[in-house]
Amino acid sequence: MTGLALGEHIAGRISRLAQISESEAGLTRVFLSREHRQAAGQLMAWMQEAGMSARVDAIGNVVGRYEGTAAKAPALLLGSHFDSVRNAGQWDGPLGIITAIACVADLNRRAKRLPFAIEIAAFADEEGVRFPATLLGSRALAGTFDERALSLRDRDGTSMREAMQSFGLDPEHIGAAARAKGEFLAYLELHIEQGPVLEAEGLPVGVVTAISGATRLLVTLEGMAGHAGTVPMAMRRDALTGAAECIVAIERQCRDDIGLFGTVGMVRAEPGATNVIPGRCTFTIDMRCASDEHRQIGVATAVRNIERIARERGLAPQIDVVHEQRTTPCADWLQAQIAAAIGRQGHRPISLPSGAGHDGMAVAAITDIGMIFIRCRGGVSHHPDEHVTEEDAIIGARVLLDLIEHFQPAARG
Amino acid sequence: MTGLALGEHIAGRISRLAQISESEAGLTRVFLSREHRQAAGQLMAWMQEAGMSARVDAIGNVVGRYEGTAAKAPALLLGSHFDSVRNAGQWDGPLGIITAIACVADLNRRAKRLPFAIEIAAFADEEGVRFPATLLGSRALAGTFDERALSLRDRDGTSMREAMQSFGLDPEHIGAAARAKGEFLAYLELHIEQGPVLEAEGLPVGVVTAISGATRLLVTLEGMAGHAGTVPMAMRRDALTGAAECIVAIERQCRDDIGLFGTVGMVRAEPGATNVIPGRCTFTIDMRCASDEHRQIGVATAVRNIERIARERGLAPQIDVVHEQRTTPCADWLQAQIAAAIGRQGHRPISLPSGAGHDGMAVAAITDIGMIFIRCRGGVSHHPDEHVTEEDAIIGARVLLDLIEHFQPAARG
Repeated sequence: MTGLALGEHIAGRISRLAQISESEAGLTRVFLSREHRQAAGQLMAWMQEAGMSARVDAIGNVVGRYEGTAAKAPALLLGSHFDSVRNAGQWDGPLGIITAIACVADLNRRAKRLPFAIEIAAFADEEGVRFPATLLGSRALAGTFDERALSLRDRDGTSMREAMQSFGLDPEHIGAAARAKGEFLAYLELHIEQGPVLEAEGLPVGVVTAISGATRLLVTLEGMAGHAGTVPMAMRRDALTGAAECIVAIERQCRDDIGLFGTVGMVRAEPGATNVIPGRCTFTIDMRCASDEHRQIGVATAVRNIERIARERGLAPQIDVVHEQRTTPCADWLQAQIAAAIGRQGHRPISLPSGAGHDGMAVAAITDIGMIFIRCRGGVSHHPDEHVTEEDAIIGARVLLDLIEHFQPAARG
Repeated sequence: MTGLALGEHIAGRISRLAQISESEAGLTRVFLSREHRQAAGQLMAWMQEAGMSARVDAIGNVVGRYEGTAAKAPALLLGSHFDSVRNAGQWDGPLGIITAIACVADLNRRAKRLPFAIEIAAFADEEGVRFPATLLGSRALAGTFDERALSLRDRDGTSMREAMQSFGLDPEHIGAAARAKGEFLAYLELHIEQGPVLEAEGLPVGVVTAISGATRLLVTLEGMAGHAGTVPMAMRRDALTGAAECIVAIERQCRDDIGLFGTVGMVRAEPGATNVIPGRCTFTIDMRCASDEHRQIGVATAVRNIERIARERGLAPQIDVVHEQRTTPCADWLQAQIAAAIGRQGHRPISLPSGAGHDGMAVAAITDIGMIFIRCRGGVSHHPDEHVTEEDAIIGARVLLDLIEHFQPAARG
């Protein structure tokens, strides 16, 4: 396939898959829905067309296999997810699956077999939109699915157990989706960056160093509510001005500390009336870093700053860690092979961490992982404006195919 | 009446009036309600018992008159309001009415007539809780009632016009409540401070210098939403961190600028998710000062600071003035007489502005106004915990009676 045709091919399939959506404007495709089933059927058909065997596994993932020169050889696992957030873009997830299928199709067209098999996992749930749990598809494949998740309910009150039964899956046999450690040589995922770094660097692709760990905190400052017109400034214990000082301090800390990402996404002042001094203010902190130790130091510094600001202002702080996720490193040997493939394709290999979560976080339980990032317009994701140019999609496919064809399994100890 | 008996008398009537409430816990008594009618009846009875004629006027105010030595003499008008916010305390409003009635009762008991009449206006709506307009009672008395308010609707969809008819008042004749400029010598209101200044000074009463004007602004900062894990700190246009810097700047400005009160009571970051950089942030500013010019300079400075912060951060600001109320000064000659009465009663007269609004803002259209503030516990108001000690209620009554008995009308030019 010529470059231009390949770009059209990938963009065309992205667009066709995006039509399978429960919402008309913006893409919405959630776990165990009618759209999940329909998209799984489409992906199976494309995998089979590419010369693969394909099946839906016990959690609803689509798994395809392209045999190597020897039967039952360990496989290089490629993949990404085909669920979406609500009102999503078209590229987050599907690009990695469709590009992987295009690579296998190219090998198959040339009747080329490698010394290892290739499997493609199209994961049924990464975003965790329907039920309050993420990475359900990749966790089932990695054998780390938590059975308690079956009791989680969606916003209509349907439990995951019921939803699986309606879909035609047996919630008692999710274990059948689990794969053993020896079955895979590595897991490689191509994904849009969902950030602006590659665009700012003028580069189409990048090598992911790690999927950053994250700590989420919920902070409440208690002060004293009062009348906006009657309490002198010096006598106030205003919870919102205290929170504002904390928010500015977190931003300054993370700007000065390379590698640390700190975000306050939600703030609420109570009682919340124009003419009442806020007596209580609640806000969230999301702190991420490619190094767990660095992140933990960053969180400790932020907490110390909040405690100091609260003390100076006579506010009572309550600071709770509500979520903690360790960093998942990408294997050095896979980073090196990805960088080499990017170089061979004529681009400067740049390394960057992934601040967003990915299926590799789960798959890392059974095999080493590597990730290729593709530039996306304006860093926009989780939005209908999410976009990748056909030129960049072609470069991504060429890098992935080059990587597969030059793939060298890690030396086993 | 002895001091102790007077304190018990006032506190007892405060408590009896507070039983007329639509809510069981906390006091709720709104305009044109059954409780309005019942409280009006009670106040009329107390006024009559104090030797006054009393009537309900065309808007639902209770107006009582105690004649002076000459019939039809101009009157010294005393008053306050007997409506409440929802879940209110017992003292905000009623203390001024009940204390005024106690003073007239004392004169009447002694058969003392003054060279001027005394009228007491118990205003039916100051808080503006039922309909979205305030000072309806005092505006009607001052002849500044805006007829368009009749079309305003309460939360059940009832218009003020309909509510007046149900109450038995004629919405076409509100003008009959209006009083002429020559009828009054002055308006004097005793009211709880609703702030912590007197308590902090260790003083039971204070002289109000002015009812502070206020400007309310609604500020929106537009930045760029993004993923909390993928957008580097240096590339962000975070609307919330920009707003936080503005909120801290407003606080610093007002702390450094004696007389200026600045409050951010409401803030909203959008989209408001833990893991999304806020792309838009909205907040309110309430700025008050006893001097209009000073307040206007303060508002201009705050706006300049917000515009500078937005410019430095690449945010688009939208700043709208949503409410503006000029300062209502208390007449110097009334302030002097109030201070003298406080001094005669053995207390140090302290002057302070009122940051909250009061009926005097409306009554000032027809006569000079003066206000006496009474200490309230912890500065708490608009809350069931609102409290005045019996001792302070006695001091307030003695100061008001002393003031009435020594009252000298202003020299007419």
